[in-house]
Amino acid sequence: MMQDRMEEIREQIVQAVRDVKRTNPMAGSITNTVTINLVANAQIAVGGSAAMVYLPDEAEFLSRAGGATYLNVGTIFPVYEESLPRAARALHEASKPWVLDPVAIGIGSLRTELLHQFKAQKPSIIRGNPSEILALAGLWGLEGGTKASNVRGVDSTDTVMAAKDAAVALARWTGGAVAASGETDLVTDGSVVALSYGGSHFMNRITGSGCALGGVMAVYAAVASPFIAALTGHAVFNLAASRAERRAEGPGSFQTFFLDELYNATAEEIANNPFELEEVGE
Amino acid sequence: MMQDRMEEIREQIVQAVRDVKRTNPMAGSITNTVTINLVANAQIAVGGSAAMVYLPDEAEFLSRAGGATYLNVGTIFPVYEESLPRAARALHEASKPWVLDPVAIGIGSLRTELLHQFKAQKPSIIRGNPSEILALAGLWGLEGGTKASNVRGVDSTDTVMAAKDAAVALARWTGGAVAASGETDLVTDGSVVALSYGGSHFMNRITGSGCALGGVMAVYAAVASPFIAALTGHAVFNLAASRAERRAEGPGSFQTFFLDELYNATAEEIANNPFELEEVGE
Amino acid sequence: MMQDRMEEIREQIVQAVRDVKRTNPMAGSITNTVTINLVANAQIAVGGSAAMVYLPDEAEFLSRAGGATYLNVGTIFPVYEESLPRAARALHEASKPWVLDPVAIGIGSLRTELLHQFKAQKPSIIRGNPSEILALAGLWGLEGGTKASNVRGVDSTDTVMAAKDAAVALARWTGGAVAASGETDLVTDGSVVALSYGGSHFMNRITGSGCALGGVMAVYAAVASPFIAALTGHAVFNLAASRAERRAEGPGSFQTFFLDELYNATAEEIANNPFELEEVGE
Repeated sequence: MMQDRMEEIREQIVQAVRDVKRTNPMAGSITNTVTINLVANAQIAVGGSAAMVYLPDEAEFLSRAGGATYLNVGTIFPVYEESLPRAARALHEASKPWVLDPVAIGIGSLRTELLHQFKAQKPSIIRGNPSEILALAGLWGLEGGTKASNVRGVDSTDTVMAAKDAAVALARWTGGAVAASGETDLVTDGSVVALSYGGSHFMNRITGSGCALGGVMAVYAAVASPFIAALTGHAVFNLAASRAERRAEGPGSFQTFFLDELYNATAEEIANNPFELEEVGE
Repeated sequence: MMQDRMEEIREQIVQAVRDVKRTNPMAGSITNTVTINLVANAQIAVGGSAAMVYLPDEAEFLSRAGGATYLNVGTIFPVYEESLPRAARALHEASKPWVLDPVAIGIGSLRTELLHQFKAQKPSIIRGNPSEILALAGLWGLEGGTKASNVRGVDSTDTVMAAKDAAVALARWTGGAVAASGETDLVTDGSVVALSYGGSHFMNRITGSGCALGGVMAVYAAVASPFIAALTGHAVFNLAASRAERRAEGPGSFQTFFLDELYNATAEEIANNPFELEEVGE
Repeated sequence: MMQDRMEEIREQIVQAVRDVKRTNPMAGSITNTVTINLVANAQIAVGGSAAMVYLPDEAEFLSRAGGATYLNVGTIFPVYEESLPRAARALHEASKPWVLDPVAIGIGSLRTELLHQFKAQKPSIIRGNPSEILALAGLWGLEGGTKASNVRGVDSTDTVMAAKDAAVALARWTGGAVAASGETDLVTDGSVVALSYGGSHFMNRITGSGCALGGVMAVYAAVASPFIAALTGHAVFNLAASRAERRAEGPGSFQTFFLDELYNATAEEIANNPFELEEVGE
């Protein structure tokens, strides 16, 4: 039965990739200034359209106008105190899909306050490294979360399997999907867990691979369910990264080739990137 | 007679490119955070010098100190409410050339208010996609403009020829030049229209090709007339993009090679990039 | 005796590079939005970990949590009025190493005010082009400094040897190290001056090579003395740049290869990058 489900998922991935290339959906972002360029270029490379804003009314406008939205708290400006909650409320009210990237959760009072507020707006996809997933579940008082954050700046000290229970609990709370990035990547909708394989050690040797992934998931979320969007994002990243690594001579050329491979990957190749599926117990 | 005029224009392009490489003019910018790095690198690649600021007094200082200035409203911060008008006024008072890039016109109240104010300061060059040109002419109440914006986020849904009347009307208002980017690019000073050929489909597959173009036009505007500066900008971009496309395997390597080709293009090669010229009726 | 000292320095460089690759130290930054991505990628390429913030409490947190911190005033936001002084005080109080990059000193009142305040917190490393070093010594009322800044935007009009006395005076004031970048680079701790050779003319043809260097010096400062950290930074940059230039066809591919070479350079290769040493008279 799992084989049938996996075949069904592969077909949904093919559909998501094709729909994005055909309809060029806009996924607006409020994101950090470190990796904002890579986020936009990755979104465009897979066939989406990018737009980034800072002001509250613009954030609200883009949330309503876009197919989906990407909110990343990596570098917070004072104006985010108003922009991020207004964007999240507009998305929730309009039932628009959105991706939350709780970067560096645990650093700073405004970041914590904003991430706390997002619980009520139930992001369609939560994407982070294992430590961030654990810390967010903890902040939201969910099972499997940690009180103390193991986030070290923007890096993770936990493994993806250690974040499985927290990811499932978050997905059950939001009714969406949760994705934890690691050597193997984990995606869950609260009832099944998919493990996505591939990637490259160079992904940790450039800044922004996680942010770009979140932005790309938002592009796919404009045309597919949160679970399929998150899994498609991981699949295309794992495929493109493993191909880019073969040609790269270091992190500089890796990033260049990675964007090339994101652009060149076909729907079938992305759907056939290896993954496993298991059901989650109650 | 048009042949004579075209030959004269080619000589002016050669002169502009050489003057920039010889004098390394500084063109300061207030621009968006998505593509700010590419803007600076493109400006430097053609031989200019880049400097970016956010604060009002710094914006005013750079406006007076630079050979020309680039104002791009792509991502607006609250401080822009003061910085952009002060920069525009300083530029107008000092009769310094400047380039306006009305990115995403129609989104947000501050963006609209700022773009409305710029009418009085008459930017030397207005550069945008066709939808942005149409919307700006509409916002300024000029002939050929549209009331409702067809801008979708940062992308255009109109063709360059559809924006011709609006471009001419804007150029006649400012007394400068207007450039609309498309598959073929249109540059007008209100009395003639030049069409610039070349480029690459990859220009729409990376973020910031339009912003980088505006920044490069500012560099040329430091040494040449608005019309020649705008046309030189399009020419070097069309030449570099078509060369980069031949070597590129995707948008990542395209961007890398595009900067290489901007740097390697000679004055004669840029002047000989194909263009056509036609007079505009009254 | 100088030969013994040079051999000792080479061993310390080897140690610094190895310690960074082994311990992956976090060096947080408050830096400009133009080159923030290159700073992070350069820090990661040499083996460090990057984190960038804007808000005051986050700046304070990172200053205490990181192995060292990089403060760059390239593009100032209003919130920096509080963030930068609080970061500098936290660093000073915790005796944590930090690098100051006085970019574009002389432009704007807040920039001048902030740079003036930093005198009391004695940055472990001051890194800049010769004009910035001269202007900072002047602003702090030290010997060898200039009253009027020769900084033109972000570029330098002075040579590195012209800034030697100012660099020595600054290093004696802070008790740390001062690094001036030029065709040959100068590093001093106030008692000896090291000249570091190599590099590439392309370093001035991309934006952010200086900022990235400051960020990398902060990474090394987490594990080595200010003088060794600054010299190691110049050595790895000079080595990587000269190697990248051999493969580059312009500034775009140069930047790509430069990051590759930063990543691939070994501790021994970095230590053997040519440098000279001379004692400073009283």
